[in-house]
Amino acid sequence: MLNLKALFEPHSVAVVGASTRSGSVGSDTLHNLIDAGYKGKIYPVNPKAKSLNSLKCYSSLSEIKKKIDLVLIIVPAAVVATILREAGELKIPAAIIISAGFRDAGRDDLEQEIKDIAHQYNIAVLGPNCLGLINPAKKLNLSFAPLMPNKGGLAFFSQSGALGTAIIDAARDLGLGFSIFASVGNKAVIDEAELLSYWQHDINTKVIGIYAEQLKRPEILGPVLNKLRSGVDAKPVVVLKSGSSKSGSMASVSHTGAMAGNDAVYEAFFAKHGVIRADSVNDFFSYLQIFNSNHYAPAKNIAIVTNAGGPGILAVDFVANSDLQLASLSSETRKKLKNILPPAASCHNPVDLLGDAGPERYRDTLKILSNDSKIDSILILVSPQSMTRVDELVQHLLLWRKTCNKPLAICLMGGSLMLAGATKLRQLGLAVYSYPEEAVKALSAFSSFNERQKKVKKDRELKLPKMSRVVRYEADKFFVQAKAESFRSLAEFQALPILKAYGIKTPKFIMVDSNKDAIIAAKYFHTPVVLKIASPDILHKSDSGGVMLNVSPRDIPSARRRLLKVVAKNNPQARLYGVLVTPMAETGVAEVIIGAVKDENLGHALMLGWGGIYAETLKDSAFILPPLNETLIKHMFSSVKVDALLTGSRGGKIADKKALTDILLRLHCLLSDYPQIKEIDLNPVIVYERGAMVLDARIHLDNY
Amino acid sequence: MLNLKALFEPHSVAVVGASTRSGSVGSDTLHNLIDAGYKGKIYPVNPKAKSLNSLKCYSSLSEIKKKIDLVLIIVPAAVVATILREAGELKIPAAIIISAGFRDAGRDDLEQEIKDIAHQYNIAVLGPNCLGLINPAKKLNLSFAPLMPNKGGLAFFSQSGALGTAIIDAARDLGLGFSIFASVGNKAVIDEAELLSYWQHDINTKVIGIYAEQLKRPEILGPVLNKLRSGVDAKPVVVLKSGSSKSGSMASVSHTGAMAGNDAVYEAFFAKHGVIRADSVNDFFSYLQIFNSNHYAPAKNIAIVTNAGGPGILAVDFVANSDLQLASLSSETRKKLKNILPPAASCHNPVDLLGDAGPERYRDTLKILSNDSKIDSILILVSPQSMTRVDELVQHLLLWRKTCNKPLAICLMGGSLMLAGATKLRQLGLAVYSYPEEAVKALSAFSSFNERQKKVKKDRELKLPKMSRVVRYEADKFFVQAKAESFRSLAEFQALPILKAYGIKTPKFIMVDSNKDAIIAAKYFHTPVVLKIASPDILHKSDSGGVMLNVSPRDIPSARRRLLKVVAKNNPQARLYGVLVTPMAETGVAEVIIGAVKDENLGHALMLGWGGIYAETLKDSAFILPPLNETLIKHMFSSVKVDALLTGSRGGKIADKKALTDILLRLHCLLSDYPQIKEIDLNPVIVYERGAMVLDARIHLDNY
Repeated sequence: MLNLKALFEPHSVAVVGASTRSGSVGSDTLHNLIDAGYKGKIYPVNPKAKSLNSLKCYSSLSEIKKKIDLVLIIVPAAVVATILREAGELKIPAAIIISAGFRDAGRDDLEQEIKDIAHQYNIAVLGPNCLGLINPAKKLNLSFAPLMPNKGGLAFFSQSGALGTAIIDAARDLGLGFSIFASVGNKAVIDEAELLSYWQHDINTKVIGIYAEQLKRPEILGPVLNKLRSGVDAKPVVVLKSGSSKSGSMASVSHTGAMAGNDAVYEAFFAKHGVIRADSVNDFFSYLQIFNSNHYAPAKNIAIVTNAGGPGILAVDFVANSDLQLASLSSETRKKLKNILPPAASCHNPVDLLGDAGPERYRDTLKILSNDSKIDSILILVSPQSMTRVDELVQHLLLWRKTCNKPLAICLMGGSLMLAGATKLRQLGLAVYSYPEEAVKALSAFSSFNERQKKVKKDRELKLPKMSRVVRYEADKFFVQAKAESFRSLAEFQALPILKAYGIKTPKFIMVDSNKDAIIAAKYFHTPVVLKIASPDILHKSDSGGVMLNVSPRDIPSARRRLLKVVAKNNPQARLYGVLVTPMAETGVAEVIIGAVKDENLGHALMLGWGGIYAETLKDSAFILPPLNETLIKHMFSSVKVDALLTGSRGGKIADKKALTDILLRLHCLLSDYPQIKEIDLNPVIVYERGAMVLDARIHLDNY
Repeated sequence: MLNLKALFEPHSVAVVGASTRSGSVGSDTLHNLIDAGYKGKIYPVNPKAKSLNSLKCYSSLSEIKKKIDLVLIIVPAAVVATILREAGELKIPAAIIISAGFRDAGRDDLEQEIKDIAHQYNIAVLGPNCLGLINPAKKLNLSFAPLMPNKGGLAFFSQSGALGTAIIDAARDLGLGFSIFASVGNKAVIDEAELLSYWQHDINTKVIGIYAEQLKRPEILGPVLNKLRSGVDAKPVVVLKSGSSKSGSMASVSHTGAMAGNDAVYEAFFAKHGVIRADSVNDFFSYLQIFNSNHYAPAKNIAIVTNAGGPGILAVDFVANSDLQLASLSSETRKKLKNILPPAASCHNPVDLLGDAGPERYRDTLKILSNDSKIDSILILVSPQSMTRVDELVQHLLLWRKTCNKPLAICLMGGSLMLAGATKLRQLGLAVYSYPEEAVKALSAFSSFNERQKKVKKDRELKLPKMSRVVRYEADKFFVQAKAESFRSLAEFQALPILKAYGIKTPKFIMVDSNKDAIIAAKYFHTPVVLKIASPDILHKSDSGGVMLNVSPRDIPSARRRLLKVVAKNNPQARLYGVLVTPMAETGVAEVIIGAVKDENLGHALMLGWGGIYAETLKDSAFILPPLNETLIKHMFSSVKVDALLTGSRGGKIADKKALTDILLRLHCLLSDYPQIKEIDLNPVIVYERGAMVLDARIHLDNY
């Protein structure tokens, strides 16, 4: 176990690379540390100086000869390993490496050295290539950011140092205080999994905020996230993840890949582990505010109080597009409101207090709403009118808030007229927004977190079907061949037997290379057949004219001729292995696509979607990360439009969804056995009232 | 012509209902007018006072006996008409009625009286039930809002007075100045069309902002909007429209209605007339800022300059989801950047200046980017680092801006550290945002406006097909019958002949009420047939078991029996007119749905979408407002996924889109002739390589 306490709450800090050169990182960092008012010991280390900022300066770590909890390293990359090893020998438990010039500069070798030393001496290393760390409660600024945020319940880490400083600066205005701010840099040793598992038990931390470009080690991070969101002391994790548009190689080779884009696996990961994802910096702050300033409680049924009709209607529009719903006020509440409000006011939801509402009308209304058990959460909208008296209103709101625990968001619309009031409310811990959409979006995220928390307990991993050893042998030969012949993909005639080996229903097929054999095969199947080209080079068979449907035995010769001719014309370079003869499948309830893609950090995600030749056109798909449980599967089905077909919405038949779940589970087994599978399409999968069958499949492999 | 100049720039104002009672609207309004520093004459009118605020007070308008340009009316609703008539007799050209208690309180009679008087005497009346009007350049505050915005290029009107005050307050902080702020209230006389056509020629107005809950008179408003967006002196119109979630009656009776929701007609109206719609209050301000602070020029190819990697990546993500694209910098630009930037900086787009970038590095980089003709627009991202020196940077930006006309957005990320800089830049007319997503969204809206402007010139209304008189007669009989028998809808057997009369291809059908006739009909068609139930009460035939496909003549009796049995079971109350026999249609390239809905204010909108029984499940649709032109039609096709099928994307056949356009034009004729059509579905419409045919249709009518 790394000693993160020494990192976050050191009693003594050595600064190696401390400097007097004004404007240098070594100088700024030492200044920040001293200026912030840190009560622990500070030991500057610089062989060229006797003292720095009136502190005795040491020529090396060894020279200090006192207990050191943490070493802050600001020296050229080439020297860092030497310093870190010295720290290890001195049993210093924690280090922050601010220096850049490692993996960020293509020097993976230097970074590996750091990792090895940290491992050897069990040092909790933050960085390298980071801004540092700030612990406001300890007045500890171990960074070169000249900022000290307020102390509070937000633990935050950023993969971008520069964004971090902007966030600290903005957070101050929003009344958001920090338990820890950490810039993680290259994450050579300490990554998100370590930080989150420490914060899980940190009593000062209420909410966790993350800015990340990638996440690592999902197998460790996932369970930590699951713990963070369960129980009464759940800590919501809000993430701002960038890089969703980065052009990856993933987008092209399969339908599933095309439908996944570069972000589907992350989306699935966040959904699975109850991480609240912000799509913009503004949302990020909105969410942090609402979670920071409210106790966990249901928020779904919202009551809106306003002194202006327009903003009220806008808020209702936003509620309609959110996970919230307008609370229907109890008749008692409506009666009480009628007694205190002027006749022209609305006693329904949204409660319109009218433009001449003073602070007392807000106060009296809110008292009544507090007692209505049909109301979960409250949104207070205030626009600046001549009778509004914002200062007094703020006082009333603060007093009332002490009597009401319901999740609350306040929207003070306007500019300068509202600023003092907003600041006061924020400093006292209330979530205040400028626009109704922000407030509604935040409350909706809050509500969803609570709804999901309820469901967490019911989750139980679905048992994987048992596979015999034979399975692996049957499938293995195709993967071995692919490796031997450097195939990057497996076509239908290779992929279907693999699926069959894993217990997935596939059609019988016979590969032929003459008309005679084709006719024999067709007769053998006793039904009209499908002819398909078998080639490792043709993956979009329909597009290439490589499929003939519903061919009767007597039409075989002409159909096969035509097929080969068209294919040869469209794909002159393709290796043709023959023609595949397979019986026409019976029409089912629906055609779906099942597939998977792999993210280099998060692993495989499974996909379900509207299948057939229009799969990519319709882009109706949902992704989930294994292992599977019932909640995930349910969520998956409910996220796709094709579910309407499966459940027979238009008076039709009902599809066997269990059979689809079984295919997903078996696909999971396959992916676990063959991590080299980069993308896989099972399309179409025909679902019947009983059972389901994969008619076509393709597999794409990693580069070996 | 109403005299709006007298309304916006009066030389003299009478205030009827001026009062000394502190806190009353009559008192506040008079105070505001005097306090703002208005240079014109002010005549308070109140029979109970001799003087008010040291101004001589008159007992009536007639007593004033001087030229009065505008009368501000703040008296009880019942008295307003008398005052307005008196104003009319005195030839006062403009009036603002602040008083409420008209249509807003169910007194349509009082409002009609106002309208009649305004019409009789040609008075430009704003209101009733409004906040009033502010003209900052004239220091004229004719409202009870205690606010005076800065003067500037924004003409703004609000249907909500209270939202208006919030917007004035916020606009001040954002550096947005107003040419006019008007609260329109009930819009009894002056509505959006009048205001916009005045502002079109107002040299002080650069951008128009609207908050509206409904819009009226599209036939007048539309052409005004078209003029506003064309030519070199185009004035962008940015609208914040609420009420999109209002539960309307529209949502239920037809597929088209269900797919339209309550907002599709407005969306179509805005798209058609180049109105920039904001989906949130925040977007509304973002858009107003960007249009206010930039000259119209292309903005599509954007260059991003940043001092922080994280925000740069985020901005790229947002660009990928916008109408913008990352400019590829010319090799000359890259070479020049390499010369001035440190080695670790990125000379590609986004240009990363690194965290230690000072103002000079920004300045030198921007100078280089100004000269790259491959760059249309620029986004400058700044996060607060220790070397950023925001004050100096602001100076450099202001100087540089004088030399560069490219559309520009600046994002100063952070809080207090950025506030002074942001304020200064905003006051000097630059568009400054707090978050990258806002800046990108704003530039994207700016770019779209310019792109659309280019296309406007090419628009030419498509000629409607000529209809003979016979047409109307053929269709008329069904509408006459519907009216006579109080039908609210026309089923297939009535709707198809109507479409046929309008020259739309429909299948032949024969209505039968015996097996014998059914067999004769089937034999007559020489192909397998479809049996469909004919009933005015069954509109979702497939769902009710009322359709049998592909029936051969010999199977007719059993099929018909089964059909009647299932239908009777599912719809025991339905009146059955018989069974409709129609030939099986040939398979086409695709099945689409064409339809229309009517909005009570904006009229009919036409829809195209993915058709068949999954139309509502797929919800793949686009709405446009007639009259049609090529741009609209093109936009319509490009907005639906089914277009991929129509254009034969997967190696398939290419559908006859012209035939679909022809159906849309003929449908438009039908809707013009029969405004009582509330909703209409043509579904499915089979499109072939040549031609298209409507297989089924239903029509819903207004209540008579």
